[in-house]
Amino acid sequence: MFFRALIPREASDLFFGISTHDQAFLIEFLSTSEKRIWLRALAPDDTADVLQSMPADMRWSLIDLLDDSARFEVAGLLAYEEDEAGGLMNPRFPRIRPDATVREAISYLRKQGVNLETLYYCYVLDQDQMLLGVISFRELIVAKESDTVRSRMRSDVVSVNEKMNQVLVARLMADHDLLAVPVVDENGRMKGIVTHDDIVDVVEEEATEDIHKIGGTEALDIPYMDTPLLSLVKKRAGWLAVLFVGEMLTASAMSHYEHEIARAVILAQFIPLIISSGGNTGSQASTLVIRALALGEIRGRDWLRVFKREVVSGLILGAILASIGVIRIIIWQKMFGVYGDHYLPLAFTVAFSVLGVVLWGTLAGSMLPLILNKCKLDPASASAPFVATLVDVSGLVIYFTLAKLILTGTML
Amino acid sequence: MFFRALIPREASDLFFGISTHDQAFLIEFLSTSEKRIWLRALAPDDTADVLQSMPADMRWSLIDLLDDSARFEVAGLLAYEEDEAGGLMNPRFPRIRPDATVREAISYLRKQGVNLETLYYCYVLDQDQMLLGVISFRELIVAKESDTVRSRMRSDVVSVNEKMNQVLVARLMADHDLLAVPVVDENGRMKGIVTHDDIVDVVEEEATEDIHKIGGTEALDIPYMDTPLLSLVKKRAGWLAVLFVGEMLTASAMSHYEHEIARAVILAQFIPLIISSGGNTGSQASTLVIRALALGEIRGRDWLRVFKREVVSGLILGAILASIGVIRIIIWQKMFGVYGDHYLPLAFTVAFSVLGVVLWGTLAGSMLPLILNKCKLDPASASAPFVATLVDVSGLVIYFTLAKLILTGTML
Repeated sequence: MFFRALIPREASDLFFGISTHDQAFLIEFLSTSEKRIWLRALAPDDTADVLQSMPADMRWSLIDLLDDSARFEVAGLLAYEEDEAGGLMNPRFPRIRPDATVREAISYLRKQGVNLETLYYCYVLDQDQMLLGVISFRELIVAKESDTVRSRMRSDVVSVNEKMNQVLVARLMADHDLLAVPVVDENGRMKGIVTHDDIVDVVEEEATEDIHKIGGTEALDIPYMDTPLLSLVKKRAGWLAVLFVGEMLTASAMSHYEHEIARAVILAQFIPLIISSGGNTGSQASTLVIRALALGEIRGRDWLRVFKREVVSGLILGAILASIGVIRIIIWQKMFGVYGDHYLPLAFTVAFSVLGVVLWGTLAGSMLPLILNKCKLDPASASAPFVATLVDVSGLVIYFTLAKLILTGTML
Repeated sequence: MFFRALIPREASDLFFGISTHDQAFLIEFLSTSEKRIWLRALAPDDTADVLQSMPADMRWSLIDLLDDSARFEVAGLLAYEEDEAGGLMNPRFPRIRPDATVREAISYLRKQGVNLETLYYCYVLDQDQMLLGVISFRELIVAKESDTVRSRMRSDVVSVNEKMNQVLVARLMADHDLLAVPVVDENGRMKGIVTHDDIVDVVEEEATEDIHKIGGTEALDIPYMDTPLLSLVKKRAGWLAVLFVGEMLTASAMSHYEHEIARAVILAQFIPLIISSGGNTGSQASTLVIRALALGEIRGRDWLRVFKREVVSGLILGAILASIGVIRIIIWQKMFGVYGDHYLPLAFTVAFSVLGVVLWGTLAGSMLPLILNKCKLDPASASAPFVATLVDVSGLVIYFTLAKLILTGTML
C-alpha cells in the first residue's frame, strides 16, 4: 500500500492534510497496530470526527485502541448530536488559575505548550471549572511578569453552549475574528474549545447540504464520487418520487380542460412555456430567500417585507416576460399566420397567464422557505424542483381559467 | 444617530463586529473627521474591503483621509482583482532576519506585537524580501533563546501567489490548518499575509454565489434585503428572459405535434408530468456535480466516471418513476375508465417517455457543468432552471416520437 511506503514525515503530512472522511477510509485499511498509532496521533475532537464517519459497528473496536483518558474524552464527544458545538469541541485546552502570576502562567504553558493542539487563548477557571476570564497567549507575553493573571484577563468572554448549533458557532467566531471559543455547559462549567480550523469545514458542509437540498436531493454526507451508487440513487429517488406523484396532479388538472384543448388544440402549445415561467421565477425566489435565511440576513419576522418586495419584483418580471410572449405571437402570426384570426385574444391570454403565473411563482418561492422555517423545518427543502412542481399545477389552473374568460366566444 | 450615542468601547465593538458591507454603510453616514478615525482604525486589507463595497466615486475621497503609508498600501490592494489572493492580503506582517537570535526576535516582536493585526507566524526574509522560512510565534517562545532564527525556522513554507484565486487560498489554509499564509509575487518576494479571519467570508461568499446561480439568478453581491429592488429585478430578469425565449422552442416543437394532439387530446395531459421529470432529475444531477466541482471532489478528467454513474442512476430513477406512472394509469383506468380501450399502449408510451426523459435529464444535468468548466465558464451557470428548460424541449420530442411509434394504429 502506497501510504506505508512513505517515510514517517511524509505519511504524517499526508494523513493530517486529508479530509476526515479520507482519514477514516485510510484507517480502515491499516493493521491494528498502525490503527493505534494514527488514532492516538489525532486530537480527541478529530478522533471523534473520524470515528463518526465510520460504520457504527467499527467505532467501538477502534475506541478500545485509545489510551484510557483519550477513550473517555472521545466517548464523551461522540455523545453529542452531529450539529452541536459539543461535537466540534476539543476537551483539552490551556487553563490557568486566576491568582497565578504572568511569569508562572507562561512557564506552565511553555512546559505544556507543544503538546496542546492550540495555544491561542488561556482560560482562567476556578476550582469548580467555572470560566472566569480569558487572556490571549500574546497578551501574556507582553504583560508584566509579576502581574497576576486575574488583573490582566478579560472577564467578558464570548462563549457558546455545548448544545449550540455549529453553524451559529462558526458565524460567531467569524464575526468576532476568534481563533478559539470556549464551550460551556448550562451551569457555566467549561467543557472544551472549538478552534478556527473546524469552522471552514462547518461552513462548507452547511453550504453543501443546502445546495443539495435546493437541487432536490437529500444531502449527501460524503463526497459525490465516494457515495456508493445505490445510496446516491436512494437519496435522489425519494424526492423524485414525491415530486412525480405531486406532478400527477397536473394530469388531473388537465383532464378538466380536455374539452377546451379539443376545441383549441393551439392552447396546448403554450403549456410548457407558461408553467416553466412560474417554475423558473419560483426557483429564483426560493434560492434567494433560502440563502438569505441561512446567512441570517432575513428572519421569520421579515416575511412581510419580503412579501412586498416579491410582489413588486413578480409584477415587473411577469410584465417583461408577458411582453416578450405577446411580441413573439404577433411576429409569428405576421410571418407564418399560424394562430388564425383570433391571435390577439390568444396573445393576451398567454400574456396575462404568464404575468399571473410569474407573480404566483415568486410569492410561492419566497414564502415557502419562510413557512418551513416557521415550522422549524429546513427552509432549504423548498427546493427548486419542489417549488416548480407546486407552481406547475396552479399554473395550469391560472392558464385555462384565463383562457375560458378571454377566449369563450372566439376560439372556445 | 444611534452609533454616536455609544461609548467608544461599545462603538468599537459594534464597528469591528459587523460585516464589511455594514461598515461601509455606516461610514457613509459619518462626518469627515469621524470617517477618518474609523477608517484609520481598520487594518489596510479591511480598509480596502470596505472601500471596495462603496460606490467608485466615493472611494478616492476616502482614500485621501488615510495617512501616507496606509494610502499607498490600500491603493495597492485595490488594484487586485476581486477574487485574487492579493485582494485579501494584509501588507503588514511580522518579519525577522535569519541571523537574529531567538531572544532578539522575541524582544523585537514584543515591541511591535500589540500593533500588528496578527502575530501567528514570523516570516524570515532576506534583504530582497525573498521568503526564506517561517517560524510560529509559539515555536519562538519555546525555543532556546540563544539559537538563531535560521536554525529553528521551517524552510518548506506553504505560500500562495498574489494572483491565486481566493477560494483556493481558503481551501489550502483549511487543509493545512493555517492561521495565516504568506502571499508572494512571481519572483518569490513576500507581499503580505492572508489571515484566517478572511477565509470564512470567502467560503460563504463563494457558496452564496453558487447558490444564487443554481437558482437561476445572477449572483447578488450584497445581502438580499439590502439589494435595491430594481437591481434585484435586473439580476433576475436577464436569465428569466433568456430562459423564456429558450422555452418558446417548446411551443415550436409542439406545433409539429398538433395533429397528434388533435387526434388524441389525452396525450396533452401527460406533457407537464413528463417534461418536469426530466427537469427535476436534471436539476438534481447538475447541483450535485456543480458542488462537487466547487469542492474539488471531481475534476474535468473525471467526466467519464461521472457519465457512467449517471447513466446507471438515470436508468434506475427513470425505471422507478416509469413504474409509478404505469401503476397510476392502470389504477385510474380501473377506477374511472378515463383512458379508453388503449390504456395499456398509452401507459407504455408514458413509461418509456419518462424513462428516456429522466435518463436524458440526468446526463444533460451532469455533463453541462463539466462542459462549462472545460470552457473556463462557471459550472454553476448550469442552473436548475437552465437544465430544466433544455430538457423540456427535448422531452417533448422524446414523448411525441415514442407516442407515434407506439400508438400509431391504435390511438393515432
